[in-house]
Amino acid sequence: MVNVAVLGYGTVGSGVVEVLGRNREQISGKTGEEIQVRYILDLRDFPGDPYEDRVVHDFNLILEDAEISVVCETMGGVGAAYQFTKQALMAGKSVCTSNKELVAMHGTELLALAAEHHCNYLFEASVGGGIPLLRTIQNSLTAERIQAVTGILNGTTNYILTKMEKEHADYGEVLKKAQELGYAERNPEADVEGHDTCRKTAILASLVTGKTVDAAKIETEGITGVTQADFDFASKKGLRIKLLSVIKVEEDGKLLAVVAPFLLTEEHPLAVVEDVFNGVLVTGNMLGDTMFYGRGAGKLPTASAVAADVIDCARNRGRTVMEGWSREEAELVDIKELKSRFYVRTSSDCAETVEEAFWGGEGAAASEGILWGKEYGFFTPAMKEKEFDEKCRKLGEMVLSRIRLL
Amino acid sequence: MVNVAVLGYGTVGSGVVEVLGRNREQISGKTGEEIQVRYILDLRDFPGDPYEDRVVHDFNLILEDAEISVVCETMGGVGAAYQFTKQALMAGKSVCTSNKELVAMHGTELLALAAEHHCNYLFEASVGGGIPLLRTIQNSLTAERIQAVTGILNGTTNYILTKMEKEHADYGEVLKKAQELGYAERNPEADVEGHDTCRKTAILASLVTGKTVDAAKIETEGITGVTQADFDFASKKGLRIKLLSVIKVEEDGKLLAVVAPFLLTEEHPLAVVEDVFNGVLVTGNMLGDTMFYGRGAGKLPTASAVAADVIDCARNRGRTVMEGWSREEAELVDIKELKSRFYVRTSSDCAETVEEAFWGGEGAAASEGILWGKEYGFFTPAMKEKEFDEKCRKLGEMVLSRIRLL
Repeated sequence: MVNVAVLGYGTVGSGVVEVLGRNREQISGKTGEEIQVRYILDLRDFPGDPYEDRVVHDFNLILEDAEISVVCETMGGVGAAYQFTKQALMAGKSVCTSNKELVAMHGTELLALAAEHHCNYLFEASVGGGIPLLRTIQNSLTAERIQAVTGILNGTTNYILTKMEKEHADYGEVLKKAQELGYAERNPEADVEGHDTCRKTAILASLVTGKTVDAAKIETEGITGVTQADFDFASKKGLRIKLLSVIKVEEDGKLLAVVAPFLLTEEHPLAVVEDVFNGVLVTGNMLGDTMFYGRGAGKLPTASAVAADVIDCARNRGRTVMEGWSREEAELVDIKELKSRFYVRTSSDCAETVEEAFWGGEGAAASEGILWGKEYGFFTPAMKEKEFDEKCRKLGEMVLSRIRLL
Repeated sequence: MVNVAVLGYGTVGSGVVEVLGRNREQISGKTGEEIQVRYILDLRDFPGDPYEDRVVHDFNLILEDAEISVVCETMGGVGAAYQFTKQALMAGKSVCTSNKELVAMHGTELLALAAEHHCNYLFEASVGGGIPLLRTIQNSLTAERIQAVTGILNGTTNYILTKMEKEHADYGEVLKKAQELGYAERNPEADVEGHDTCRKTAILASLVTGKTVDAAKIETEGITGVTQADFDFASKKGLRIKLLSVIKVEEDGKLLAVVAPFLLTEEHPLAVVEDVFNGVLVTGNMLGDTMFYGRGAGKLPTASAVAADVIDCARNRGRTVMEGWSREEAELVDIKELKSRFYVRTSSDCAETVEEAFWGGEGAAASEGILWGKEYGFFTPAMKEKEFDEKCRKLGEMVLSRIRLL
């Protein structure tokens, strides 16, 4: 018998209890023993809930119960969740979580604590929801030198961009609908400004490099600046606009990590990832591209990933299976030194001035410019970001928007 | 130090040696110790090859070397490969292989031998080539009741079908080109008749059900009967034709397993899997659909999967990590009792007769029939396969072709 405590009986926490209950037979077959939820920690009571009798309000009950070997931290946040996780690991109890914020902020320390106390800190659900991505990178692609990971990691923003494209609707309008459907939160900032994708990028990049990647140092841009006019241009060019997490390990070992909207071709494997789905393309030096696709969020898919972590802990008691990453910090490529091509949009009045600023006397045939209504859009030559930014600074409000080409 | 022997220095075998060599640093980091190829068993000599000095001709050398803990069986076939695998496992040496024929035929026995001798029989490369599929089902989707697996598992036939569709070319013509490019073998039977997909289906179905699935009992149909006229119909209907492996676990625990060409909509996630790529859709009761996509064959992707198995063995010495499946045989659904809709093609002369045979007096508006040139194609109502077959038998040569709708 493996005894489990669930911290937080919200969406994911109640999902974990449901998955462990509904697939009990399957799970005990896989684990070799029964997994039982002994405690559910929450501030609230849940009268009438089938697990009502497991609800407790004091974390110390869990901490002091020597028979609890696995704790599911499904509270969220970086306050109490951080304290409880540390205490559990220090008591030799494995912790499984979907809390990407905590993993991105304190993962290095918590992984080290787990190793020190011969238990596990597992967080499959923190990136890609139900898509089994982290364990695959850690345990399956072990013979590969992973060169790049390119992913759509946030369902909310992917839903918004998909609807903007398909329904020719404006950002604000689609956001409102997404909020009504429960796909976006009332305060959507963490999603639409790219912070959620940034945290997931930090976790993935840490796992790929084996070093600590500070989320705060990842260049992050959200989707609030993407307009219907940008989709007009994209559709005329056979391109899609996606909020991507781009991770590349350069030959010299430096790490490139960027979160931003990108233009990609319709043939790109990630172009077909629509609505709330997530997709992740992993590039290895032997394997080439492999893609993983599925539900990146949602109660049961996320809970299924947490439950898989619980099973992994149960199968590996006293054994740290998650190698994770070291305290050494990964060296990041300075994105300002990076060469990219950009799409730039301006008004038809300024078309000549803006295009010339990027192409000079070279003539603009190579810019593939398009005029529609009062809009003019074109591609710049490949140039360093710092040069691009400098030109944009000089052009001021004449540049209405710009998006990188993948 | 982990000492490895590679049996067979052909495409995959030499790939394994190359991957272990080129990614040595990465791999020893992941494994915690160095992995070294001590022997390469082959009938030939390889003068000038950098590993020339490791080549041996006598398997007993390997068997009797107590320091060899892992053997890579990359010989193929079910003769010597079977004997060597059994002997290695009985000596407590783990075996990693890409040999789907052997796994499909003797996997049950070999898995039991590995468990008995506290070592491993691993075969990630046998299904989906470089796509990490088996380990994911075994170790990541552990909290799921897997309800279905639908896959494009053979790159050769997918290449042929893709070219037939895109280039409006005939089967024979495309096959010849595929042979010239090395995508199809000179004797293409195993691929085009569906046998290769059938073996992979048996392995996947065994893993999903935890029971033995006999490949010989899986309804298997290849692509040799698919014509350009069928693609004409499909394209007019916005459908694709793919050779699919279809695995379903019914509510009563019975297993449906079929290999055949299917018509699927352009929106189906597998519709975008083109050329030599493989794609597999796994449906779990909590997770919904998750898709895995990548190179299903090729020297280095396949070798990377074998090498990942070697690393898994090295990390788990003395411990059987592959649960596999039991000797109990899975009960198969009788496909003749299954209800499906079919597309049927006939000549314009016989259109009325053939359509009426399936739709009777009901009128044929529901058949969505199309006439083009001298061809007529339509859909049947949902009906049991045995009834469908009986009607086709009566209609004889009037039925030019038929393909199931997914």
